[in-house]
Amino acid sequence: MKIICTRENFKNAIFNSERVVSKQTTLPILNNILFETERGILKLSATNLEIGVEVKIGAKIEKEGRISIPARLLSNFVNNLPTKGAEENIFLETNEQGIKIKSGTARALIKGLPAGEFPLIPKKTSAFLIKLPGQQLKNAILQVINCAALNETRQELTGVSLLLTEKELFFAATDSFRLAEKTIGLKGKIKKEVSFILPQDAVRELINILSREEGYVVIYFSPNQILFENIKEETSHTQVQILSRLIEGEYPKYQEIIPKKYKTQIISKKDDLQNQLKQAGLFSGKISEVKLAVQPEDNRLKIYSESPEIGKNEAYLPVKIKGEAIEISFNYKFLILGLQNIRSSEVIFELNGEEGPGVLKPVGDESYIYISMPIKLS
Amino acid sequence: MKIICTRENFKNAIFNSERVVSKQTTLPILNNILFETERGILKLSATNLEIGVEVKIGAKIEKEGRISIPARLLSNFVNNLPTKGAEENIFLETNEQGIKIKSGTARALIKGLPAGEFPLIPKKTSAFLIKLPGQQLKNAILQVINCAALNETRQELTGVSLLLTEKELFFAATDSFRLAEKTIGLKGKIKKEVSFILPQDAVRELINILSREEGYVVIYFSPNQILFENIKEETSHTQVQILSRLIEGEYPKYQEIIPKKYKTQIISKKDDLQNQLKQAGLFSGKISEVKLAVQPEDNRLKIYSESPEIGKNEAYLPVKIKGEAIEISFNYKFLILGLQNIRSSEVIFELNGEEGPGVLKPVGDESYIYISMPIKLS
Repeated sequence: MKIICTRENFKNAIFNSERVVSKQTTLPILNNILFETERGILKLSATNLEIGVEVKIGAKIEKEGRISIPARLLSNFVNNLPTKGAEENIFLETNEQGIKIKSGTARALIKGLPAGEFPLIPKKTSAFLIKLPGQQLKNAILQVINCAALNETRQELTGVSLLLTEKELFFAATDSFRLAEKTIGLKGKIKKEVSFILPQDAVRELINILSREEGYVVIYFSPNQILFENIKEETSHTQVQILSRLIEGEYPKYQEIIPKKYKTQIISKKDDLQNQLKQAGLFSGKISEVKLAVQPEDNRLKIYSESPEIGKNEAYLPVKIKGEAIEISFNYKFLILGLQNIRSSEVIFELNGEEGPGVLKPVGDESYIYISMPIKLS
Repeated sequence: MKIICTRENFKNAIFNSERVVSKQTTLPILNNILFETERGILKLSATNLEIGVEVKIGAKIEKEGRISIPARLLSNFVNNLPTKGAEENIFLETNEQGIKIKSGTARALIKGLPAGEFPLIPKKTSAFLIKLPGQQLKNAILQVINCAALNETRQELTGVSLLLTEKELFFAATDSFRLAEKTIGLKGKIKKEVSFILPQDAVRELINILSREEGYVVIYFSPNQILFENIKEETSHTQVQILSRLIEGEYPKYQEIIPKKYKTQIISKKDDLQNQLKQAGLFSGKISEVKLAVQPEDNRLKIYSESPEIGKNEAYLPVKIKGEAIEISFNYKFLILGLQNIRSSEVIFELNGEEGPGVLKPVGDESYIYISMPIKLS
């Protein structure tokens, strides 16, 4: 293999592929990135056997070839190349020991492993599912991902549920204590309903790549496997693919627990509510219980907490209230988590009696809902 | 105790005292800050039994008193008080359970422990030693502290050595592999020479406080104990004191190993040298050995490294050279550490043969010197 490409493209390609590379593994080749040439294109592949990432960049190929190179060393080396007044290109050439890298006055030889040993997740024939802007996909996922279960006892809850219907794409995550759902409206026509559960690792990889890459994402689907392809609008050879297995099993029918109405509705400034919950949380003791008293006569929300060992705390927040007065307890961490997912400056907080779910929604945006169950008053 | 003070002063006082508070301790009262009133002043004290910090702030005292309060909870509470359009004062009142805090609409009761149980390091009668600008003291310490030994086998090397002579104050630290020395010229007349070894914890506490506080530092000295007092130029009640034990023992006569001349002198851009050492370090293997070849005929420095498992690397740096050609090996981490302590854009690097010490100095500043021993060529 003998190629020339721009340092910027090369650096980006390594950043996009290195994160999936295992840090510790009994299989040393999984620490590596596979480099292959393919008709005027340099292809980088990395995998942890669950997720595979493939990045294609434009390169001038003087001699075709394949090799696998340790990802961290290469990443550190490229990242640390001098930037000012630097040579813009990077020259790569393999020999029997590894890969020779040349850029400006820097010369290195990095030892590699034969490309033939490199494992690849087999790509199944996947059907085109949908194309949508990368940033829209990233933001939707970010609004639900922190509700997914960390505990593996119910594997389906560790992932993010995607449901594609004729006119909408629903993202949801729940650990059975709280739930978040984001909806994206679709313009194109979807022929058949498809639903699947994305593993959290694949989701994080996707977010990582979309935080650097612009353009569109095309999703291809086959049973048990999903393929995300990031493509740019302008003519560019750079292209990133993420291939991941899907979580088997049935996602819970969460739609049934989303309340259709409310008994009490509060509209509050988001930051104020968040800060007061944090403050009360300091005094909340082991089960993180914070009490709320909705006082419609004064248009205020009392937020208070007490723990025998620590002390107690109370504060009043001016809010707009519709519906009935209520006293109710929540795990303050769950409410803060929901508020963190909301970007509007004002927030709607709806309650459904002492034992019914509490619902957080942005003001002026119907596409997001966050639900937390209250702590039952003893 | 019943007092009113500004939130800003109160917040600062807690930040300055809380860091010394132990995180885990068998003595719960060491998690606390002691609050005492003293003639129009609120005094906060915290200690880990090695170092004591005392902060005085102005307050309106309606009733005298003393109490000790958990530091982290109080700090989190004060830090999280709403800031916009907020009440500027904080109202504190003790009762039999603890301390009631009121600020704006926020009300809290934080449980405390009786002030009588709070341990204090006894203050010995200390003699005035020197007064100098806080930032000068902080910067001097920061330029040497990372050379102090982490290993406790030779306790005196874990501290920072201070030597006060008639006209100069010397700061030094060494772990016997590398050494840093910073000199501050003095204007006032010092009557007698004094030297002592500051423990690293006290040094870090001092840096922490000086990174937020302006003004002067007065140092008071007594055998085995040191007192730093931070005072501000403007009329302000705020005052911070750090009291610490000193490390017993004799600091090594490091002055003897500082070379008086050189065989080879290199002048290089600091950032370029630092980056190339990092780059070479990636290929340096377990003992972090990087090789340098000084090539006076080409006015360049070759930096290279090789490891049988990883690969190899080389780069050339344009530099100014005086004296003889040499090939020499260093632990690249030690050289980078020295370069990090130097703020000038150009750096002097002096060598004294293959086995003599390497010396790093800022260009245009005689007050700082960093020494690293080479790795002997096998």
